[in-house]
Amino acid sequence: MLNVTLLGSGGGMPMPDRFLSSLLIKFASRKILIDCGEGTQVAMRKYKSGFKSLDIICLTHDHGDHIFGLPGLLSTIGNSGRTDPITIMGPVGIKRIIEGMMVAIPFLPFDLDIVECTGSSFSIHMVSQKLRVKKTYLETNDNKVNDNNYYNIADNNISTNDTDNTSLVLSILELDHSSPCLGYSFYLPRRPKFNPEKALEAKIPVKYWSRLQKGQVVMDNKRTYHPSMVRGKERKGIKLSYIVDTRPTADIPDFIHESDLFICEGTYGDSDDMKKAIKNKHMTFAESAQLASLGKTKELWLTHFSPAMDKPEQYMDNARQIFVKTVLGYDGLSKSLQFPES
Amino acid sequence: MLNVTLLGSGGGMPMPDRFLSSLLIKFASRKILIDCGEGTQVAMRKYKSGFKSLDIICLTHDHGDHIFGLPGLLSTIGNSGRTDPITIMGPVGIKRIIEGMMVAIPFLPFDLDIVECTGSSFSIHMVSQKLRVKKTYLETNDNKVNDNNYYNIADNNISTNDTDNTSLVLSILELDHSSPCLGYSFYLPRRPKFNPEKALEAKIPVKYWSRLQKGQVVMDNKRTYHPSMVRGKERKGIKLSYIVDTRPTADIPDFIHESDLFICEGTYGDSDDMKKAIKNKHMTFAESAQLASLGKTKELWLTHFSPAMDKPEQYMDNARQIFVKTVLGYDGLSKSLQFPES
Repeated sequence: MLNVTLLGSGGGMPMPDRFLSSLLIKFASRKILIDCGEGTQVAMRKYKSGFKSLDIICLTHDHGDHIFGLPGLLSTIGNSGRTDPITIMGPVGIKRIIEGMMVAIPFLPFDLDIVECTGSSFSIHMVSQKLRVKKTYLETNDNKVNDNNYYNIADNNISTNDTDNTSLVLSILELDHSSPCLGYSFYLPRRPKFNPEKALEAKIPVKYWSRLQKGQVVMDNKRTYHPSMVRGKERKGIKLSYIVDTRPTADIPDFIHESDLFICEGTYGDSDDMKKAIKNKHMTFAESAQLASLGKTKELWLTHFSPAMDKPEQYMDNARQIFVKTVLGYDGLSKSLQFPES
Repeated sequence: MLNVTLLGSGGGMPMPDRFLSSLLIKFASRKILIDCGEGTQVAMRKYKSGFKSLDIICLTHDHGDHIFGLPGLLSTIGNSGRTDPITIMGPVGIKRIIEGMMVAIPFLPFDLDIVECTGSSFSIHMVSQKLRVKKTYLETNDNKVNDNNYYNIADNNISTNDTDNTSLVLSILELDHSSPCLGYSFYLPRRPKFNPEKALEAKIPVKYWSRLQKGQVVMDNKRTYHPSMVRGKERKGIKLSYIVDTRPTADIPDFIHESDLFICEGTYGDSDDMKKAIKNKHMTFAESAQLASLGKTKELWLTHFSPAMDKPEQYMDNARQIFVKTVLGYDGLSKSLQFPES
């Protein structure tokens, strides 16, 4: 399960009644944050998110409304007693910016592991009860694909199977903004359903069924047993995508394809503001809805509203005429994304 | 007149219902800000302060709860269309910290004039309808003192008289905190009352009275006329002092002497927390009240409350038993400091 909370829904400047866009993802009792504008720590406190269990911060880009809350948040996390490292991901160049801002914090009781994303695929794993990011390489080995072990982790200490649903696939897309900007997509794979008929037919000893269904390869003195021997057909997992601060790009529909939840900027509600959107490298509600539709997503949340837009709700028809399942984001909007019963 | 607004009253961390301590001073239609923690720009917006006319930012020290709002505020001021430079004052070492934080702002449409305060006396003048800071040197010349021209400004373009009540004396005091920290005091001098009997007795032509009363020295082909020839006895001006993040020091009572308003940290309300106060280099309500009393101030505002202190009001007796005119600071508390009628 992924639990998501939109900590803020504003763009550009923090406002008294609207925090800056950022998203908190709760996963397996740990947390991932996307973007950290000024006031994000206040929003986290308001929505009772807690600080100590935040393991990963994904930054879309280096503009102030997405990063100026970082020094304060990290200081507060430091005061929470955390000593485990925090991974910060962002586009190339982000390390220099973060290190500059950190000059005002002479000491943090934990390390920062800053990853400038040059590849497009990563995975997130539970290691010692903390979430860790690893760069991944797509496998072409069919068996591995069948076993749902899509990724080969560089660190051998990390289990590659999804035995306890504590691994996420993290994909990254370069966007089209006035500064290098990344879109993020999280995929929580789901095990294929257990198929006892198949297991019986292949004469798999019952004592191995559970381990095989959990994705482990089992060997005894007779045979090697693969998970595919007890598993039925593949099942779709949960997909969450987050795209802000960009013009629409041709790659976005594929990137967000079949997302259960697509969170997307809607800086301008009025479609007549498209010229402004083009100039400032943002999107209108209608453009975001068009992407949601092309990507066959299940639900769209609009966020990152221009501070000049007092009442974004008055423009919702511009989105809903194109994509019915559009929700107007607001500070504190929250949802649990769960596997459907099947 | 000085109009002051406490933008926030919290210390340590910004909270959903309490912004971080900072003070906005409106003076002659321009603005001076003391401290700028995360969220200060939001508080300024909430209390409708406006951004463009902010000329001077005084930072007490480099701790995050006093400076992390700076990059966001400066960006927002940049968006307001300001092109005139902004002066930032702070203790020695602040320049490196500010420049580090500024790495995330590749362009500001105005210059930052960062002053690391090595002296103790400055003056603030209206130059081209903006407030500017100048380092000052105390004069010993009696005539000048009598003429109320206490300061000799290095820049000859700046008028040294108080003809239009648009000059302030800014004094600075080194405090006792875990990082170099400054207290600030602002003094708005008041002209002595006009004394027509004295002017008549000294046979001053009536046509010179107004200029002399405004502080100008007038010469004609007969005599040189000094302001003291038409002015009565000296009158006290308006004094505002701001002291946060320190233990009590022996210098503070003199520094805040006879302040009309003394704004002071009260990190801990409970006098039993004095051990914590000593360890963390802060003060209890009782200690702040003792300073207010020793300094013969007219009114004390407590601020910079520990985030662990839910209800600071329950400790107010600890201060009021020592200094009756203690006010519990709160976000948005505002007051106009005016010359008394006399």
